[in-house]
Amino acid sequence: MARLPEFEPIGLVTLITDFGERDHYVAAMKGVMLAIAAELRLVDLSHQIAPQDVDGAAWFARNSYPLFPAGCVHLAVVDPGVGSARHGLVVLARRSLFVGPDNGLFTALLESDDAACRAIDTARYARAELSTTFHGRDLFAPVAARLASGRLAFADVGPRLDDPQRLASLAVDRDGAVIRGRVVDVDHFGNLITNIGALSARTLSVHVDSVPIGSLVTTYADVATNQLLALVGSCGTIEVSVRDGSAAKRLNVGRGATVSIVVDESETHE
Amino acid sequence: MARLPEFEPIGLVTLITDFGERDHYVAAMKGVMLAIAAELRLVDLSHQIAPQDVDGAAWFARNSYPLFPAGCVHLAVVDPGVGSARHGLVVLARRSLFVGPDNGLFTALLESDDAACRAIDTARYARAELSTTFHGRDLFAPVAARLASGRLAFADVGPRLDDPQRLASLAVDRDGAVIRGRVVDVDHFGNLITNIGALSARTLSVHVDSVPIGSLVTTYADVATNQLLALVGSCGTIEVSVRDGSAAKRLNVGRGATVSIVVDESETHE
Amino acid sequence: MARLPEFEPIGLVTLITDFGERDHYVAAMKGVMLAIAAELRLVDLSHQIAPQDVDGAAWFARNSYPLFPAGCVHLAVVDPGVGSARHGLVVLARRSLFVGPDNGLFTALLESDDAACRAIDTARYARAELSTTFHGRDLFAPVAARLASGRLAFADVGPRLDDPQRLASLAVDRDGAVIRGRVVDVDHFGNLITNIGALSARTLSVHVDSVPIGSLVTTYADVATNQLLALVGSCGTIEVSVRDGSAAKRLNVGRGATVSIVVDESETHE
Repeated sequence: MARLPEFEPIGLVTLITDFGERDHYVAAMKGVMLAIAAELRLVDLSHQIAPQDVDGAAWFARNSYPLFPAGCVHLAVVDPGVGSARHGLVVLARRSLFVGPDNGLFTALLESDDAACRAIDTARYARAELSTTFHGRDLFAPVAARLASGRLAFADVGPRLDDPQRLASLAVDRDGAVIRGRVVDVDHFGNLITNIGALSARTLSVHVDSVPIGSLVTTYADVATNQLLALVGSCGTIEVSVRDGSAAKRLNVGRGATVSIVVDESETHE
Repeated sequence: MARLPEFEPIGLVTLITDFGERDHYVAAMKGVMLAIAAELRLVDLSHQIAPQDVDGAAWFARNSYPLFPAGCVHLAVVDPGVGSARHGLVVLARRSLFVGPDNGLFTALLESDDAACRAIDTARYARAELSTTFHGRDLFAPVAARLASGRLAFADVGPRLDDPQRLASLAVDRDGAVIRGRVVDVDHFGNLITNIGALSARTLSVHVDSVPIGSLVTTYADVATNQLLALVGSCGTIEVSVRDGSAAKRLNVGRGATVSIVVDESETHE
Repeated sequence: MARLPEFEPIGLVTLITDFGERDHYVAAMKGVMLAIAAELRLVDLSHQIAPQDVDGAAWFARNSYPLFPAGCVHLAVVDPGVGSARHGLVVLARRSLFVGPDNGLFTALLESDDAACRAIDTARYARAELSTTFHGRDLFAPVAARLASGRLAFADVGPRLDDPQRLASLAVDRDGAVIRGRVVDVDHFGNLITNIGALSARTLSVHVDSVPIGSLVTTYADVATNQLLALVGSCGTIEVSVRDGSAAKRLNVGRGATVSIVVDESETHE
């Protein structure tokens, strides 16, 4: 039986950076990629990640990358460790490739069963003028352009990497009936978005730090105005809100706050 | 004699949203569209519409959409009513298609003689995981991608809709020699941009609220520094300005202010 | 022997403007271009140039344009002189074309040996409704689209222009062993980025205004914390920094400050 190829490039590169658009950094990366393969299609996802916010970028990646078709190359450059010994990384997962620094940006993709990682052979693939501060232009853009245009195969990127960095901020732990995760984002309404996915088991309680929120409801209208509630939001994870108010203000918490869920184990179907 | 087809897709989708670029919302819409039709070209118009500013987005649409070629699909998601009973809308006008919530975003296009509207059959075209808060990703992006790639015909979108929402903010009324419109935008120079188009009749007077501005001039240089004036601006509509100053500050008005024009009816050619 | 053609269009237009994305200006330019040639690929470089900051845009152009492949059309509209008698300009350099107002935006490209300039024949190429305030839409976008799609040849743009505007802010002067340039950018760390390129001769001293910085080092680690230093940055030019601090604050200078370098002439190889 024919096996599906792991990666067939479709000539498309998406971009996530924390560079903003005032400076020439994004433009430089685009120029380098098009100089290697003028036929590439470049799709901006965001250049407004908060500066050096690897956790925020990883959450952004988790919510957007899986929606794209197989064959894309996803380039993400949020790189506080540039110039240090951190590896350049290419991940193969979901029949797509992910290119950027090895700092946890691709944590969500590493959960995929078929994920494989390689460290970029910098000496071989960097531009001749490799700077110490701008690997987006000098290393990651050239590698992404070659991969997306079929000029470079994943197997030739560099040596296998067995222990890529993963972010603790995206980890969910389960201990019997208790599931622990975190607030990973606060939206502009003050809703606390967690990294705990929808559960098949009935939820008995939700706590943020030690504050009880009650059980999971279906819509805001299930509680009275000003009441705390928890529901499954548009990222497919549990969100904690105040009806017509701000949960972030009410609970005085933000990103990183611990969230724990107790489920009825007798009903677990998984 | 062969009739021109009403809509021939050219594989291009433009995007207007109020999502900004910090969050993953725009990226998610792009992923959904490319997963349906990887060959689509996506053209960002703006993701910086002020949050939930339907009037502002409709004015943006009025000034940009008519410049695009026939065959485009224009996707606009500024959607304060998401989750309510408002329809999803597709407008066919000017041999192009316009996809978004039925809340007046496309008011300017509805003036077109050939405009036709259909309500989106949500049960048929939404993603399996239709959220209550993010129809941009779950309903409008899938419909736009199918229309732009020829996978869905306008006639199959859903039932005809005869009374789409129109915005009062874009309405111009005429009562004999008196034409009444509104300030629809204030630019960063403080110029008051109205929705009253250039007139074939001679303008006798322009008023903002009850303040007389004088008659229409051709350029700023026609009046002295610090004087109020009215002229036809780059949107093709009447603008009220102060030479080397701010009309918004001088008159202490902003968007929504009433503008009335008296024309010489004896000269009307229309 | 066959000579390389000076410009072979590859159907790609890049955009730099100071329009932001809140208003419809960028969208209007895109519509005009696609209406002329629907097959064009449009690549956003930045719409966040500070309003009317021609110097900043010229520096952005200097750092990004040379990275793109031959055959691109680069459209830049930062145009404080719109409506005045300034020319519309097309520069041919590096087998690419550059379209915008003649105000110095393309100063860095004019250094190229093969650079040639033409003034746009406005009467011939402007849109029928040429406004006095928005030549991006009415003149530059139509010309860029025609050039990028092969509908217009450089030779037919208009008359030769022998004295295009150049920005003093990008000029570097050499007087024997002394090279004088300027701070052209201050990054968000407070590093002072100059327009003086890496030198083949040994640098004896660097001064900002009259303050001595010392000689050129290779990395930040070459000096102690809080010390001033100068090195070659990622733009390939000399940057003045404070290790773990802000050179802009320490020296209380910003864009436009004079930088002078004294080199050891006995070692000059150029």
